[in-house]
Amino acid sequence: MSFISTLKQPTLLLDEQKCKANIKRMADKAREQDIVLRPHFKTHQSAVVGEWYRDQGIDRITVSSVTMAQYFAEHGWRDILIAFPVNWHEVDEINELAARVRLGLLVDSAESIRYLAKHIKTPVGIWLKVDTGINRAGIPYNDTAMMLALAKQVHSTKNLRLEGLLTHAGHTYKAAKPGNVATVYATSVAAVNVGKHILEASGVPAVKLSVGDTPGCTLSPSLGEVDEIRPGNFVFYDGQMLCKQVCEWDQIAMVLACPIVSVQPERNEVIVYGGAIHFSKDNMQDENGVHHGNLVRLNADGSWNAPVPGGYLARQSQEHGVIHVPNLKDSGQRIGDWVGIIPAHVCLTVSAMQKYTTLGGQEIKTFA
Amino acid sequence: MSFISTLKQPTLLLDEQKCKANIKRMADKAREQDIVLRPHFKTHQSAVVGEWYRDQGIDRITVSSVTMAQYFAEHGWRDILIAFPVNWHEVDEINELAARVRLGLLVDSAESIRYLAKHIKTPVGIWLKVDTGINRAGIPYNDTAMMLALAKQVHSTKNLRLEGLLTHAGHTYKAAKPGNVATVYATSVAAVNVGKHILEASGVPAVKLSVGDTPGCTLSPSLGEVDEIRPGNFVFYDGQMLCKQVCEWDQIAMVLACPIVSVQPERNEVIVYGGAIHFSKDNMQDENGVHHGNLVRLNADGSWNAPVPGGYLARQSQEHGVIHVPNLKDSGQRIGDWVGIIPAHVCLTVSAMQKYTTLGGQEIKTFA
Repeated sequence: MSFISTLKQPTLLLDEQKCKANIKRMADKAREQDIVLRPHFKTHQSAVVGEWYRDQGIDRITVSSVTMAQYFAEHGWRDILIAFPVNWHEVDEINELAARVRLGLLVDSAESIRYLAKHIKTPVGIWLKVDTGINRAGIPYNDTAMMLALAKQVHSTKNLRLEGLLTHAGHTYKAAKPGNVATVYATSVAAVNVGKHILEASGVPAVKLSVGDTPGCTLSPSLGEVDEIRPGNFVFYDGQMLCKQVCEWDQIAMVLACPIVSVQPERNEVIVYGGAIHFSKDNMQDENGVHHGNLVRLNADGSWNAPVPGGYLARQSQEHGVIHVPNLKDSGQRIGDWVGIIPAHVCLTVSAMQKYTTLGGQEIKTFA
Repeated sequence: MSFISTLKQPTLLLDEQKCKANIKRMADKAREQDIVLRPHFKTHQSAVVGEWYRDQGIDRITVSSVTMAQYFAEHGWRDILIAFPVNWHEVDEINELAARVRLGLLVDSAESIRYLAKHIKTPVGIWLKVDTGINRAGIPYNDTAMMLALAKQVHSTKNLRLEGLLTHAGHTYKAAKPGNVATVYATSVAAVNVGKHILEASGVPAVKLSVGDTPGCTLSPSLGEVDEIRPGNFVFYDGQMLCKQVCEWDQIAMVLACPIVSVQPERNEVIVYGGAIHFSKDNMQDENGVHHGNLVRLNADGSWNAPVPGGYLARQSQEHGVIHVPNLKDSGQRIGDWVGIIPAHVCLTVSAMQKYTTLGGQEIKTFA
């Protein structure tokens, strides 16, 4: 009985070897440039994959919520950065964590520093969040006066230890061409370096720099003048990374296997069990237009082949996925067959699925 | 201590009174027109809310997966329709269910009927799925020859009991104006009636018709010549329904409460803890353009007010939501405050959150 024939419902498949190769490649790159890799664990969300990082000498991690920090603390991680602006309502949980691990927090306002000054009982590291262009949270990169004021405020507050400046150049995801990614990354690194120099010139000592996103850290030959990088997505890669030429198809370590439940030859479409509750609903854009992921054919052992040209997840509703299959009549696809989809955005797919299965049949659960 | 001040993380709030009123309104409408309401339980996904339907005399339900059917069967429901094209790989689970409840399945192909003929061991009801324009699964509404062939195939198969024709006119969600919704609904009802008459004229007896979607069932004064309707979303309503004028804002029974973690006055934006892993990532379109939900102000008891004009969830990443707040400087919004968002598509938000909390403080878990 083949591995694929044991499946019943939409199943997120993990190619462990590709995943481990992705981890090793990024760890080697950081090591060679003498930069700390503090990988973002919000992509894989699992203690099992965390161990594969530990095998590469990684001992510092990034997470995106207090809950995720608690989970990884329970699994032996002792240096955890919560790379999300601090949520005041979880300060009790933060205090408990800070008593157990070296904890890093993110702030971008005097108000949050004052709040922490009042409520934090154990020393925590503080990173000032800098917005280098993604327009989410953060001190605008050119507001160095605010950066300096907040740095001094942290520095003079008991229990708050200033770590440095942190940015997420997530706008690399929107760069039109692979060549532009390195430029966006380098500009972002330059921006935080300006901030660091102004802070240090004003007497704030030992300002560290933390940057990084998967496109920038993958495509920039030099990681630049920084202390640490925090990419996450590269552990699996996905359709968004493929269509931006950040990775090759055979570096993608995860596909969602879905059974065909209806065939519509006139429209060149098959309907699968596998929709928005499995993939989430992010999208990507390539020569097929805007869609939700690339079609791949699955082998009996669960491994997959290069994306089918012109095959993609065109539409989704709650449990339905509508897949465009070119020349469907000649493709041999039938009801009951399993097909694979490379998710557009694998972090959200992992969040939605909450578990995945290696090609060796090991089920890996996320923290949720 | 107010209800809101007890919250820590993004919390899906349910106004139980509005929800019960929504249930009663739809149940009354169906009863008055002598049509069975077989509500779709994929929206609320919970045994607790299921009981509120039972209080209105509902004893037949619709679900969208075998897993959901198993859950509601365990909670005492005895007439369950799985309104999703049958997934061959769950035939063992289907056989177990069919032994316990009156089970309805959906098919749109000779292949699936042959598969069921071979593997189904206990009688099940079969609905032929008809596509009246949504272009998902289903027999094209004008292919009455195929409808007749499949009906006869079911009719002559042991253990398969032909129930009738089923359609989901989900393209009402795309109708440009409220007036068009009733037209799409009526056209869809007319299409399956044509099918029914052709089947009955050809000697297939007692063909029932099952239709329905929230926009059509809400906005069409007459539900038409059908046996049952299967709307689901109306139990809570959401931003997509609001912007299509299917409901009023004060009929919406659910908002996601999110804490502000960063304020960006220059951009009139606040960043909240509440992103794609909480809302999922569906969208809606109104006078504010395409966005992910409407901003509402929360009261201390968790209730909410009319949507803030010009306030909306503009962008999302994994845990971040970026909310546009008009005249932010004058709004008084600060870090630590809780705001509410009416989700664009509440079914997906419920799926992502897997629990919700009534304003009375009762936590309700979904089946997941």
